[in-house]
Formats: sequence, C-alpha cells, structure tokens
Amino acid sequence: MEEVSLELLKKKMEDFAKERDWEKYHIPRNLLLAMVGEVGELSEIFQWKGEVAKGLPDWDEAEKVHLGEELSDVLLYLIRLSDMCGIDLGKAALRKVQLNALKYPAPTHHSTTKADHTAA
Amino acid sequence: MEEVSLELLKKKMEDFAKERDWEKYHIPRNLLLAMVGEVGELSEIFQWKGEVAKGLPDWDEAEKVHLGEELSDVLLYLIRLSDMCGIDLGKAALRKVQLNALKYPAPTHHSTTKADHTAA
Amino acid sequence: MEEVSLELLKKKMEDFAKERDWEKYHIPRNLLLAMVGEVGELSEIFQWKGEVAKGLPDWDEAEKVHLGEELSDVLLYLIRLSDMCGIDLGKAALRKVQLNALKYPAPTHHSTTKADHTAA
Amino acid sequence: MEEVSLELLKKKMEDFAKERDWEKYHIPRNLLLAMVGEVGELSEIFQWKGEVAKGLPDWDEAEKVHLGEELSDVLLYLIRLSDMCGIDLGKAALRKVQLNALKYPAPTHHSTTKADHTAA
Repeated sequence: MEEVSLELLKKKMEDFAKERDWEKYHIPRNLLLAMVGEVGELSEIFQWKGEVAKGLPDWDEAEKVHLGEELSDVLLYLIRLSDMCGIDLGKAALRKVQLNALKYPAPTHHSTTKADHTAA
Repeated sequence: MEEVSLELLKKKMEDFAKERDWEKYHIPRNLLLAMVGEVGELSEIFQWKGEVAKGLPDWDEAEKVHLGEELSDVLLYLIRLSDMCGIDLGKAALRKVQLNALKYPAPTHHSTTKADHTAA
Repeated sequence: MEEVSLELLKKKMEDFAKERDWEKYHIPRNLLLAMVGEVGELSEIFQWKGEVAKGLPDWDEAEKVHLGEELSDVLLYLIRLSDMCGIDLGKAALRKVQLNALKYPAPTHHSTTKADHTAA
Repeated sequence: MEEVSLELLKKKMEDFAKERDWEKYHIPRNLLLAMVGEVGELSEIFQWKGEVAKGLPDWDEAEKVHLGEELSDVLLYLIRLSDMCGIDLGKAALRKVQLNALKYPAPTHHSTTKADHTAA
C-alpha cells in the first residue's frame, strides 16, 4: 500500500493553482472560508443520521464515495491554507501529537510497569 | 526534508486513542464536531485581522506557532474521522485532485496555441 | 413572557460597538469568521457526548447556562454580520420560511384524507 | 417597520416540523450539524471575494438576496436548536449582551463626565 504525503498533496495543489492562474485567489482568508464551506458540505452528509457507527456499516457505497470526496476537499484546502501561510503542516502536526501526549499523559500500564520493575 | 504521510499520522492518532482508552469516544459524529471546534479555533486566529497577506509577513513568531497548532488540530481530527469511517483519506484525496482537474480543465498554454496555429 | 426582537438585539450590538469604538473591526468577513469561531465553541459543548436527547435531560444547570451563552454568541454575531451587510435579517427569515414551505409542501392532513376517501 | 421576534420564528419552525412529521429528526446534534452546513453555504458566498466592504456596495441584487437566504438558514436552525435544547434564546442573548458589557467595559467619555460634573 502506497503512502500519501502532505508534501505530495501540497505540490499537487500548487501546480493546480498555477496551471489555472488561480494563485491570486489563494490568499489565506479566502482559503480558510473555502475550507469552512467544505466542512459544511461534510456536515451535511451526517446531519440527519442521528448517531453513526464506526465503519459506517449501514451506508451504501455511493455515500461512502461522496464522504471521501468531502473529507478530501477539507484536507486539500487545509493543506493549501497552510502552504499559503508558510506553515509546514507535516512538521507542525508531528509536533502537535507530541504536545498532546504531554498534555494528556497515557496512564501507566500495570503489567508493563511490573515487567520494567522486574527488569530493573 | 522529511515527508510526513497521512498513514503515519493515522497510526499516531490510533495509538494515542488506544493508550488512553479513548477509542470509545471516537465515533464519527463526535470526531466531526471536535473538528468543527478546531476549525472555530483556527478562525479565531484570523477573525479581527482584515485581509492577511500570503506568508503572514506581519505576524510574530508566537502567532505562527499557534497557527500551526490549530491547523494541526484540524488535520489530526480529520484524519481520525476518516479512519473511523473506514475511508482511505490519502487515496480519496489523490482521486479528488484528479476529479477537480477534470471539472476545471487547465487552459491551453500559449506556446501550445502557437504550435496549433502553425500546424493549422 | 416578553418577546425579544431581532431589531432590539441589532440595536444593542450597534451601541456596543459604537461605545467601544469597535465599528472599524466590524467588517463583514471579520464578523463571519468571529461567528465561525463561536460555532466552534458551540460544537465543543456537544463533541464528546454521543447523541443528546431533546431538552437535555442529563445536563446539569451550569452546562445549560454555558450552552445558552454559546448559542447567544452565534446569534449576536449573525445579527451584526447581517446588519453590516445591509440585510434585514427578520424580513429575510420570514421570507425564507415561506420559501421552505413552497419547497417542502406539507402532506395533506389525515382528516382531509378521510374526507377524500368519503368523496371517492 | 415591523419587528420580528425570536418567539415568532421559533413558533414557525415548530409548526413547520410538526406539519411535515419532521420532529423526530430534530434532535440537538442533527440540528447543530444542519446549522454547520448552513454556515458553510454562507461562507461559500464570501470565499473568493477578498475583503468585502460594509453594506456590500459592489454586490448585485441577486447576490444580496442569496446572502439573506443563507443568513436566514443559519438563524432558523439556531433558533430550532435552542428550542430543542430547552433554551430561551432571546433571554439568553439579552443576558449575554450584559455579560459582554461587564467583560469589556466601555471607556468613560471625558467630555461627558466633565459636563456632568459641571452640571452637578
């Protein structure tokens, strides 16, 4: 299975805008509002469903494809917004995961602790 | 420069939830609303600024770091939401870029046009 | 029970901005992003709760008060945004309710159906 | 000019849902996501415009009508959400305006103060 990097998608968005001469529209707040628009379309998919189970067992294939498109639209504008702000999103995300781990420390697993103690 | 893949971030979010026993909270609409919350925090950074230039030339370093954190929070919940819906976000995003290219064809380049004229 | 009009809240927001010399910040996209920020705070209240029953039977009083504040923040920025765009929100909302009724006609009522049956 | 109250719009939304037997869909998180969807549509109107001047001097009439519809959609779902949560939105909004005035006190106007002192 092939991995898709944020760098690759950033480059694709950059080329896309360049080829269409759309770079002039891609100022930060325009892109932010475009992303909010896509978050709205994503929410519309979920709005009348009540709670939805993990893995979407009751959804048909067409709905899942549509969902993938809306999730992607949010992602693509988010990547483009980050780029136009001069933010390295991949680096920032890795750092944020570490900050979150400090903010919400994982509970110590007793069995592991025990094993560590034994080892020590 | 190292590339950061969606797969890697997905795995980190999965481990993070597992280690804290938070998987039970990570149902699709919870994650969607959490993401909307982060989009709100991202918007707050931009709300009173009027238009903002590409590259954020007038922002101080602390603001840029904060911005990187909020962009990351949106990304991390988006990745986790996709995962909990069983959507391969990287694959979906690559497909969406292709669909967008079909929907908005790039204009023919000038040089090509010239060549066409010559050919005619 | 006293009725609260959109006009009254509009006037209060106008005075509020004037008294603080904040009118210069209240340009349309600033207000829109401020409203998105408040929608985010509203979503945060609901994000980890799974489905929530009508009337919020399981919420404590402090949570309901907080919810009322976030709902109000969205409303106040929405009213201010409408005003700064020169839109009469009350008039527009009444018109939209009528448009919705045309778009989604109400089904014929049971008693009418009975009458139809009798007629048939 | 007629005033439009939140109570009136609440009643219209209630009747609308009842007549269509849609009350079962109007649980809090469904309505919240529907509102987020409308915030998205509102944002789309503003997304590629760069900064927008107060009063929308450059917008044509059709765009303003469309804007009024999207502002209304956000309002109507916000009112319905409040109602389904058992929150009196008008009362909450008046209270919030007062809280905001305490949080952000208006600066004392020197000239007025002086005049008052002279008068006293």
